[in-house]
Amino acid sequence: MDERAARMCLAAVIEPGHPVLADAVADFGAEGVWAGLLGADGDLPIAERARRLRPGELAARTKAERLRFLIPGDPDWPIRLADLAGCESVNGLSGEPLGLWAAGAGDLGALTAGAVAMVGSRASTAYGDSVAADLAAELSDAGRCVVSGGAYGIDAAAHRGCLAGRTPSLCVLAGGLDQPYPAGHRALFDRIAERGVILSELPPGEHPTRVRFLARNRLIAALAPGTVLVEAAARSGARNTVTWANVLSRVVMAVPGPVTSATSVTPHRLIRGAEAVLVTGAADVLELLSPLGRASPRAPGEHRATDELTPDELRVFESVPGRGSIPTGDLAARAGLTVPRSLALLDQLVERGFLAQTPLGEWQLPPRIARRGG
Amino acid sequence: MDERAARMCLAAVIEPGHPVLADAVADFGAEGVWAGLLGADGDLPIAERARRLRPGELAARTKAERLRFLIPGDPDWPIRLADLAGCESVNGLSGEPLGLWAAGAGDLGALTAGAVAMVGSRASTAYGDSVAADLAAELSDAGRCVVSGGAYGIDAAAHRGCLAGRTPSLCVLAGGLDQPYPAGHRALFDRIAERGVILSELPPGEHPTRVRFLARNRLIAALAPGTVLVEAAARSGARNTVTWANVLSRVVMAVPGPVTSATSVTPHRLIRGAEAVLVTGAADVLELLSPLGRASPRAPGEHRATDELTPDELRVFESVPGRGSIPTGDLAARAGLTVPRSLALLDQLVERGFLAQTPLGEWQLPPRIARRGG
Repeated sequence: MDERAARMCLAAVIEPGHPVLADAVADFGAEGVWAGLLGADGDLPIAERARRLRPGELAARTKAERLRFLIPGDPDWPIRLADLAGCESVNGLSGEPLGLWAAGAGDLGALTAGAVAMVGSRASTAYGDSVAADLAAELSDAGRCVVSGGAYGIDAAAHRGCLAGRTPSLCVLAGGLDQPYPAGHRALFDRIAERGVILSELPPGEHPTRVRFLARNRLIAALAPGTVLVEAAARSGARNTVTWANVLSRVVMAVPGPVTSATSVTPHRLIRGAEAVLVTGAADVLELLSPLGRASPRAPGEHRATDELTPDELRVFESVPGRGSIPTGDLAARAGLTVPRSLALLDQLVERGFLAQTPLGEWQLPPRIARRGG
Repeated sequence: MDERAARMCLAAVIEPGHPVLADAVADFGAEGVWAGLLGADGDLPIAERARRLRPGELAARTKAERLRFLIPGDPDWPIRLADLAGCESVNGLSGEPLGLWAAGAGDLGALTAGAVAMVGSRASTAYGDSVAADLAAELSDAGRCVVSGGAYGIDAAAHRGCLAGRTPSLCVLAGGLDQPYPAGHRALFDRIAERGVILSELPPGEHPTRVRFLARNRLIAALAPGTVLVEAAARSGARNTVTWANVLSRVVMAVPGPVTSATSVTPHRLIRGAEAVLVTGAADVLELLSPLGRASPRAPGEHRATDELTPDELRVFESVPGRGSIPTGDLAARAGLTVPRSLALLDQLVERGFLAQTPLGEWQLPPRIARRGG
């Protein structure tokens, strides 16, 4: 049995976020721990489960459900999950996952590189749903993948908004990927899987439990450099994801709402206590997650995610004057690129909202954009 | 001509917040400055105005309008206004007022002792009006006078909320008190004057101007230890009051709202930039303005403005047990006061909501109150 197979077997018999297991695997390797389990005292429930497991059947079922089983070190393994190794535990849970079952056509590594987690109440308001969907759509259009769970309310609104934009979303479930929960979201999960990715620490056939939701929350917080809380009542499961984000030193953001709304109590409390930064839209989120962070003074409409541009795209973008417009030839000369190459990049920049074309075919900044510091 | 008469004359001919005037009066006294003005070069417009002024007529008009003219040092002069002397200027304005025309039956000194300023947009939303009125009513019931301007929108909602509670409100106008502005608020101003106070730096007959509104804003910020901003669009006059509150090291608070609301842009921006603390209700405001500040853990309904109690009132209040009730005799013994004196104080404390009487005539904390730290 190889490392991957051993990790799959361990993930199938031991609850996610088990604090001792991660340490044991780090010390002895997955194969060693699996062999140890199989040879352990027969009275241990976990040893009993290990002996009952049929590794071949599990692998076959994973394949039959068209799932991949990813492990740390795989090229598309999200590197941020390593932060879970050795971090403080929450509710007695901790540790990097042994592996993840994954479905969907998306590139997990690429998606998580610029991900933003978004969580909130299941019992969201129309306001919360609308804000979550708008924010997710704007982030998606800015090239950011939105990571969330699969619940009703803010989770679903976040996925729907993200799917409406140009970047697919990433969904993390607390049960097996063949067991969509809630069942009413089966169609939503299918749509996410078309371009995005659905992940779970649990093997096919498993159902979510309370502790599995808590363990799942640590993955949502870990997968992104920042978590946005949209709506949450005084007592809300989303608060747990925020706790994980704080433990993992992620940027914690919260969207305010009417003070008369019970679902804005937790965002307001977090903002008031400086546990979260108030954000009102995608520009705020992108600024907080940009490498420059809060160092740059902010003005409405000033911010574009230029840090996502390739060097050539940035060269073209920076060659457009702050005021007025520039013909293609002059722009190509300024940028030091050929005209065809410049035109290809210009088309992309226009499509992504960084630039606009005048009726005479020249290039300019869109009306709403003033270049930062320019 | 005495100091008061000279200050009245100066206040009548020189625009409020004049930076040089306050210094001159501090150096030479009001009588000296007034005499100097009368003898100054005839080409100076201000000297011309001084010579045209009829001090006797101004005093008679002040009296005829049933106004008082207060000056620093008067027993009910708000001591916080002294912070305006020597503080940074805003829009070129600064300085403690030379005097204030006052109308209304309220005790200005007592009202400003526990005041909270509340400002916001003229073009407020139904949400903002409702939040401002509720917040003002709760503060009023907690013994806090709300200070605001006389404008439509949040100002009016704040006064109406405060008037619905047990403490009257304080209104500061930018024109003469006989010239209600806006005219549609004449009835509101009359109601405020029944139990509260209306103030102006301007003499009767004067109309508000842009600079007088700016000078007036410094008084609103200075009169209270904290200012709450309820709603304000990206560009709003209320922002100017917040600037004054910051310059005067007052506690600046802001109420969040829907991120989709244009009138919540400035509160959100202030909170995000840590220029204001997010508040969701009177409990938040009272906590921030309590002498202990944020040091004490907060629970809803926990806070009473006990810092406003006299030493004897506080002794009686503190003699009531945290749980259960106490007969009058035991309470008087604990407090070290006579029974009649205790009863007089108990009646006041009950009327002001600090204590309640049981059906058997014993004394207890009202159901909603838990004593801080007890």
